[in-house]
Amino acid sequence: MPQLLRVQSFTVSADGYGAGDDQSLERPFGHADPGVLMSWLLGTASFPGRTSPGGSRGLDDHLARDFHHGIGAEIMGAHKFSPHRGPWVDHAWQGWWGDEPPFRTPVFVLTHHLRPSFTLGATTFHFVDATPQDVLDQARAAAQGRDVRLGGGAQTIRAFLDADLVDTLHVAVAPLELGSGTRLWESPDELDDRYHHDVVPSPSGVVHHLLWRR
Amino acid sequence: MPQLLRVQSFTVSADGYGAGDDQSLERPFGHADPGVLMSWLLGTASFPGRTSPGGSRGLDDHLARDFHHGIGAEIMGAHKFSPHRGPWVDHAWQGWWGDEPPFRTPVFVLTHHLRPSFTLGATTFHFVDATPQDVLDQARAAAQGRDVRLGGGAQTIRAFLDADLVDTLHVAVAPLELGSGTRLWESPDELDDRYHHDVVPSPSGVVHHLLWRR
Repeated sequence: MPQLLRVQSFTVSADGYGAGDDQSLERPFGHADPGVLMSWLLGTASFPGRTSPGGSRGLDDHLARDFHHGIGAEIMGAHKFSPHRGPWVDHAWQGWWGDEPPFRTPVFVLTHHLRPSFTLGATTFHFVDATPQDVLDQARAAAQGRDVRLGGGAQTIRAFLDADLVDTLHVAVAPLELGSGTRLWESPDELDDRYHHDVVPSPSGVVHHLLWRR
Repeated sequence: MPQLLRVQSFTVSADGYGAGDDQSLERPFGHADPGVLMSWLLGTASFPGRTSPGGSRGLDDHLARDFHHGIGAEIMGAHKFSPHRGPWVDHAWQGWWGDEPPFRTPVFVLTHHLRPSFTLGATTFHFVDATPQDVLDQARAAAQGRDVRLGGGAQTIRAFLDADLVDTLHVAVAPLELGSGTRLWESPDELDDRYHHDVVPSPSGVVHHLLWRR
């Protein structure tokens, strides 16, 4: 089985933004409201952050399930891990996710500001200052034959797309506009020269875009 | 986590038949051509019978993946296991699937004609003459906390629906009519009083129906 690099359940606005401007401790998605942007995901039975039983089991849920399936490592950008900019003052910050982050695999954080690896619940965070190809090689080795999830944000996905390293993408386009922020694309069709592309409207109002290499 | 009873990747014709008339050794689906009925599935990267790399990774593939995900046992009807009717003359028949059946879990075959359990590759077949509730209890115990797949055929799924034991269904409706055979339903809407229901047309031409209990 090939060991894929996969984008899963990444959500952007109708105008292509994965997050708004002015990220802060209080607003991890900047001026975007993640409860609105990701409402399609929060109601599913398979939402990785779900703490109570229940939730929908329709199309949105089938796609949310693949967040974990067959994944052995994640790569994320520095801004997904933290609102801090510049060198670390201390290492008290351990991410947004509490004592049991939903990743449950090794996670490689791409950053110019290195710090020691640490483990929280079932997740170990590593900090790497490397090219997309080099961090992907490290993540593949850590994934032990399973796939690697490219966790975002939009800038990080763009960097891996520009390096032609992404095998499959599941991107949900939410029915709202952000106007500014970090942008994944101007149109989902921009990748059609390199990827097959299924467009799947969901009853929830989002449109799922499923892309895989030609 | 609840231990669900799930129908996965079950395919019916536009008029609701899961197989045609006159099943035989040469025609496991009777007058229906499984290569046409299930063409949406055969081309996916995750088709359980796939023997070579490649295949699509769009919507159809995302749904095909759930055939294995989280499944610890299968229940199937006697006609899915074999074209034979009546008591076994001998036990030479071991199913349609060759030396490595795609189930890779315990499989419970509902039949009035018992025979000893046997193991083939990673699959063990058990033969049970019991009510739907009783065989489900056995399959749940064997699944060790994972879900149970209800593998069909249509008559078997109907029996479990009538006993109100099915938690989720993924049924693909193929764009062809069979006119007769074993029927799952007259219309996918018949279950709407008991199930939520997402209708998801695929670019491949099938329409996926995803149902989960209200």
